Amino acid sequence: MKTVLIGAGNVATHLGEALQKAGNEILQVWSRTRTSAETLADRLGCPWTTDIEQLTPEGEMYLFCVGDAVLESLAHQVYSVLEALGTEGGDGETGRLALFVHTAGSMSQDVLPAPRRGVMYPMQTFSRKRQVDFAEIPIFVESRTDEERLMMMAELISNRVWVLDEENRRYLHLAAVFACNFTNHMYDLSARLLAERGIPFSVLLPLIDETARKVHEMSPREAQTGPAVRHDMNVIGKHVDMLSDPMVKEIYTLMSDSIYDKLRPNED
Amino acid sequence: MKTVLIGAGNVATHLGEALQKAGNEILQVWSRTRTSAETLADRLGCPWTTDIEQLTPEGEMYLFCVGDAVLESLAHQVYSVLEALGTEGGDGETGRLALFVHTAGSMSQDVLPAPRRGVMYPMQTFSRKRQVDFAEIPIFVESRTDEERLMMMAELISNRVWVLDEENRRYLHLAAVFACNFTNHMYDLSARLLAERGIPFSVLLPLIDETARKVHEMSPREAQTGPAVRHDMNVIGKHVDMLSDPMVKEIYTLMSDSIYDKLRPNED
Repeated sequence: MKTVLIGAGNVATHLGEALQKAGNEILQVWSRTRTSAETLADRLGCPWTTDIEQLTPEGEMYLFCVGDAVLESLAHQVYSVLEALGTEGGDGETGRLALFVHTAGSMSQDVLPAPRRGVMYPMQTFSRKRQVDFAEIPIFVESRTDEERLMMMAELISNRVWVLDEENRRYLHLAAVFACNFTNHMYDLSARLLAERGIPFSVLLPLIDETARKVHEMSPREAQTGPAVRHDMNVIGKHVDMLSDPMVKEIYTLMSDSIYDKLRPNED
Repeated sequence: MKTVLIGAGNVATHLGEALQKAGNEILQVWSRTRTSAETLADRLGCPWTTDIEQLTPEGEMYLFCVGDAVLESLAHQVYSVLEALGTEGGDGETGRLALFVHTAGSMSQDVLPAPRRGVMYPMQTFSRKRQVDFAEIPIFVESRTDEERLMMMAELISNRVWVLDEENRRYLHLAAVFACNFTNHMYDLSARLLAERGIPFSVLLPLIDETARKVHEMSPREAQTGPAVRHDMNVIGKHVDMLSDPMVKEIYTLMSDSIYDKLRPNED
């Protein structure tokens, strides 16, 4: 499908590259920021613009990879521009309708104004610096009008594609915030603690890796170890005293309470 | 070294097996619980007891793998028994002193009453069901009397052995609680959210793996993604509304505040 990328951040970069590799032509990149637009367009070897009025009406798919806060208004702007060119009404010059697709976990397909619309949510943490293997990334698809077409496209880039409705997708996104964003913040807090003592963060990597590997074989509930699940108030008290940052202290206490609240103590 | 294991939990099991494999003779296992003592002794092919009075005085090392709460009193009991047998005074029948070692991250070597004492802290999350490769596990050693001996022994089972003093070890343990125990709890909370919707936890594994892999290449600070670091109050508000458990709601809010507090927003 001839694709126009709206957005040039982490998701647009990785998804754009994967789509291109799978044979989709990327016609153009739009971003509010000139540098981002230019950088991604260079990587993809396609034109770019920061001006919505300059968007090509030739796209078969307009793929929105932008923050939730701007998605709806941006999609309306893009639709108006295409409509003015007679491309979106279905009886314009080209006689066809473009498909509008967004990639957000927590947004309805109906924030998109185009009659043909859908969602393609890749559940992964993307950073521009790091290559990802899209084949392993679960993609969740929803579309009232183009489910099959989106499924086919998603299956070109990933081996793990599911149809999932909006409500379930919202819960999946919420779960992903815990499993990824909050987990990474735990890594960050531990890195800061070690940095204060001059200990390199790399000493924690075997522990971090094993913690992730364990839940491939047992449930997180079974995998839980540490002072909180043992209700070891001696260690917990000392740890709280050692933390100087009040918010981090509060996190330690709340997490320990929650672990104890959710789990029976393990024998140790 | 002829070793007596005090404790038969996860740490005792994995460390006992690694020490035996490296050529140390395990003389005996003690545990308060008969089943635990018997199970581990079976795995190691050695005698067991639940009676401190029945401990063999032949150990060159008494290795305490027990909860922090009972460590000190247990070590004193063991020492009294050996002392009564004339083994610990240094001028008893055997003329030697046994080495007392514990494996706790947050306890001083001086909770051990024996004149020869030290700490060997393996920083890993152990579950009995799961094999671990001890070679990759960082071990932190401290001993006023037997540093070299403990280093040599630790190096027989791991490629990552460091000498680390008590205060730094305490911070390391604290950091490990964030990087492992709290991280695993995040996995658990996400698993519970998905279970409520009938979605299998396994869909999150590629995300969990990538989150762990990323911090091998960049700092957790650089790796942070998600609504909190973008300060996407729209998504954050919806997520908080979706959570029914008040404690989990509080965790979501506090973690999001902390991420935003610690990091400048990334462009997306």
